[in-house]
Amino acid sequence: MGKGQELYKRAKKVIPGGTMLLSKRPEMFLPEKWPSYYEKAQDCHIWDLDGKKYTDVCIMGIGTNILGYANEEVDNAVREVINKSNMSTFNAPEEVYLAERLIELHPWADMARFARSGGEANAIAIRIARAATGKDKVAICGYHGWHDWYISTNIGTGDGLGNHLLPGLEPAGVPKGLEGTTIPFAYNDIEALENIINENKDLGAVKMEVSRNFGPNNGFLERVRQLCTNNGIVLIFDECTSGFRQTFGGLHKMYDVQPDMCMFGKALGNGYAVTGVLGRQDVMQAAQKTFISSTFWTERIGSVAALKTLEVMERTKSWDTITETGRQIGENWERMAKTHDLEIQVSGLPALISFNFKSDNHLAYKTFITQEMLKNGFIGATSVYVSTAHTKKILTDYFDTLDGIFKTIAKCENQELNIMDLLESPICHGGFKRLN
Amino acid sequence: MGKGQELYKRAKKVIPGGTMLLSKRPEMFLPEKWPSYYEKAQDCHIWDLDGKKYTDVCIMGIGTNILGYANEEVDNAVREVINKSNMSTFNAPEEVYLAERLIELHPWADMARFARSGGEANAIAIRIARAATGKDKVAICGYHGWHDWYISTNIGTGDGLGNHLLPGLEPAGVPKGLEGTTIPFAYNDIEALENIINENKDLGAVKMEVSRNFGPNNGFLERVRQLCTNNGIVLIFDECTSGFRQTFGGLHKMYDVQPDMCMFGKALGNGYAVTGVLGRQDVMQAAQKTFISSTFWTERIGSVAALKTLEVMERTKSWDTITETGRQIGENWERMAKTHDLEIQVSGLPALISFNFKSDNHLAYKTFITQEMLKNGFIGATSVYVSTAHTKKILTDYFDTLDGIFKTIAKCENQELNIMDLLESPICHGGFKRLN
Repeated sequence: MGKGQELYKRAKKVIPGGTMLLSKRPEMFLPEKWPSYYEKAQDCHIWDLDGKKYTDVCIMGIGTNILGYANEEVDNAVREVINKSNMSTFNAPEEVYLAERLIELHPWADMARFARSGGEANAIAIRIARAATGKDKVAICGYHGWHDWYISTNIGTGDGLGNHLLPGLEPAGVPKGLEGTTIPFAYNDIEALENIINENKDLGAVKMEVSRNFGPNNGFLERVRQLCTNNGIVLIFDECTSGFRQTFGGLHKMYDVQPDMCMFGKALGNGYAVTGVLGRQDVMQAAQKTFISSTFWTERIGSVAALKTLEVMERTKSWDTITETGRQIGENWERMAKTHDLEIQVSGLPALISFNFKSDNHLAYKTFITQEMLKNGFIGATSVYVSTAHTKKILTDYFDTLDGIFKTIAKCENQELNIMDLLESPICHGGFKRLN
Repeated sequence: MGKGQELYKRAKKVIPGGTMLLSKRPEMFLPEKWPSYYEKAQDCHIWDLDGKKYTDVCIMGIGTNILGYANEEVDNAVREVINKSNMSTFNAPEEVYLAERLIELHPWADMARFARSGGEANAIAIRIARAATGKDKVAICGYHGWHDWYISTNIGTGDGLGNHLLPGLEPAGVPKGLEGTTIPFAYNDIEALENIINENKDLGAVKMEVSRNFGPNNGFLERVRQLCTNNGIVLIFDECTSGFRQTFGGLHKMYDVQPDMCMFGKALGNGYAVTGVLGRQDVMQAAQKTFISSTFWTERIGSVAALKTLEVMERTKSWDTITETGRQIGENWERMAKTHDLEIQVSGLPALISFNFKSDNHLAYKTFITQEMLKNGFIGATSVYVSTAHTKKILTDYFDTLDGIFKTIAKCENQELNIMDLLESPICHGGFKRLN
C-alpha cells in the first residue's frame, strides 16, 4: 500500500468524510488505490508521497489552476506578500485594486466584495440580493455550494437538487423553516422559471450557472434577464467555475447578457484562496444594511494572487488557449471512440470538457481508465479541466495511452472481456453532477 | 491627505462598506485620518503607504498574529508550500497532521474539519450539530459570525444581538423562516439558559464563548455542560477568538469543562487563513449525512501555517508570555488612570485586554488617544491584542506616550479643556461589542 493510501486511512479516522472537498475523495477516483496526497506539483505534474510523478490530465485542483500548478509569476507575487506580511491591523491595498480591475472587466458592475471560498461568495450574494429586494425566495439552476440557503432546496421536495448537484442528498442539519425558500428550475426551461415567478411574488433572486453541460437555447439567457428586470428580481450568475474559461472574465460576456451580480472563484487566484462577488451599485449597497464581515477576508495573498493571475491571463490570452486545447481534447475523444466503436457523449465548456460512456458499465469503465492511466503516469479519468500547461506533447502521450485503454474497453463492450475482471479496486463513486 | 486615506476614498466607491471586516474600517479608529492600508508589517510594526512606521499596540490584525507579523518560522513553512504548490488534484497531507495535532491537544475530541474563515467554521459546526440531533434550534451567547443562522437571532426580537455583537443590527437579507431558531442568553445567566431549554424541546445546540469581557461565575460552565448532557444538546464552544490566548488550545482547558465541539480561528495560522471545527466522533460523523464541501478548504497554506504556528507556540509557551504581558498592560492602565484621577474599567482576557473610560465622552477620548498615538508612531486605542513581539521596551515607550495623553484627558474631565477642541477628526464609530 502506498503512503498516500496509508495516510488516507488515518484521515478517515480524524476527518469525517476523509477530505475537505467531496470531489477530492479517493473514492471518487480509484477506491483503495488513489495516491490521495501530494508532495509537490508543478505545471501539470504532481508527485505523490512515494515520490512517483504523474501528469494531471484530470481536474487540475478542481479547476483552480488555469495557469498550471506553482505558476512562477503568481507565486513570486505571493512570496512578496509573505515578505511584507499577509496580515496587519491596516487593510491590504490590493483588495481595492482587485475590485477596480474586476469592475473594469465587467463594465455593468460597480462594486465588489471578496471572500475566501466559493460557498461564502454564494452566501454573500444571496444575503445582499435578499437585503436589496426585501424578498426571501430564490430560484436556482446549478451548483451553488454547501450553505443552508441552497441545500434547503431539498427540504420537503424529495430530490430538488437531484439534477443540479447530488441525487438523493438529504438536507440534514438545514433548518426546516427554510422550506420552500429556494426553488430549482431546469436549464433552458424558461416556462418553468416563468411559473416560479408567477407563483412566488416574494421571489427576490434568480441564481444560475450561465451554462451547464450544454449551452443556452437561442434567447434563453436574454429571456431570463427580461423576466428578472420586469419583476424586480436580482439576477445572479454563478461564475465560480465558468469564469475565465472562455472569456477574460465571466462566461456571460460571451452571450452579452448582463446579470445584476455575479461571483468568481476557483481560477481567480490560480490556486490561492480568493473568491469575489461583483454587482451593480444599487444592489451591492444593500450590504451596508446588514452584517457581512470576516477576519480572513482581509488577508493579502488572495487579492495579490488574483491581480497577478489576471495580469498573466490577459497577457497570454489563456482563455483562448485552454478553449482551443479543450476543443481538441473533445474531438480526439470522439474520434478515438469512433475508431473503437464506442459510444460516448462529450459535454461541457471546452476548457471543462468531459465525456461519458453510453453504457451501463460507465462507472466501471471510468474506474478502469483511472487505474490504467495511473500505471502509465497519468492522472486521468473522464474530465479535463484544461490549463495552459497542457502542451501538445503531453496530450499526444495521453491519447496514446488512452487509445490502448479504449481498445480494452471496446473488448468489454463486445463481451470479449469482463470489465470486472480487469478492475483492481472497487468501482469509483458516482457523485457530483453538473447536468441538466 | 495621506495615500491611505486617498485609497480609502476609492475603496468606498467600489466596495460596499469600504473594507471586508467591520473592525478594520478606518471609521472605527480615526475617521478621515486613519492610515487605513499597509505597505508591510514586521513583528509589531506596520508601515503605511506613505512609508511611515508605526508600532501596533492595538488589535494586531484583529488577533491573528500572536507570534507577531511576518514570523520567520511560520513564513518559511509557507514559502516551502509555495515552492511545492498550494493546490493540486491530490489533497494536502498536512490537513491530516493538523487534525491529529488538534485532537492531541484536546483529548475529548476525535475528529476535525477545516475551513478558511471563522464564519464558515461556525456555520459548519451548527450544520453538524443540527444534523446530529435532528433539532434546529440553537441557544447562543457571544459573537459567532455573519451567517444567516446567527443573525436570524434579531428577526422579530428587536435587538437580540444587542448585547452580543452590534446594537441595533437589522437582520436584512436573512430569511424570515429562521425566526425563533436562534435564541440568545446572557453570559453567567444559567436560569435564562434553563428556561430556554425548558421551553424549546427542539433545542439542538448551545453555542457560546467560554468567557466574555469577564469570566464565568463559580460553576457556570459546569452547569451549562450538565444541562446540555441531560437534555441531549450539543455544547459548542466558539474559541475562534479565545483559542491559544491563555492555554495551548481552547480556553476551556483552563476551566476543565469539555464541550462536544469547538471552533478555532484567528490565531491558529498566525495570519494565514485557516479555521477549524473540532468535535467528538458521534457528533462529527453527522457531517457525512449532509453536504459540507468547498474547493479552497483544500489549499495547503492553511494547514502548514497552523502546524508551524502550533510548533512555535508550544516551544515558546506563547500563551504564558502574552497573558503575562496583557496582565501588566491592564495593571499599568489602572495605575496610570489612578494617577490622573480618571475612572476606567479594564476587562477581557489578559491577552485581549481592553479598557473603557467611565465617562459620557468615552468615544471622544478613545478617538483622541488614537489621534495622539498615531502622531507618536503608535497604533493604539483602548484594546491590545497581545503578541510575543510586544517587548518590555515597546510597552515602556507606549506607556510614556499614553501618560501624556491621559494627562490631557484628565484636564478634559476637569473641564479645563474641551475634548472636542482637541479632536482633528470626527469621533470614531462605536461598534462591535464583546460585552455582557
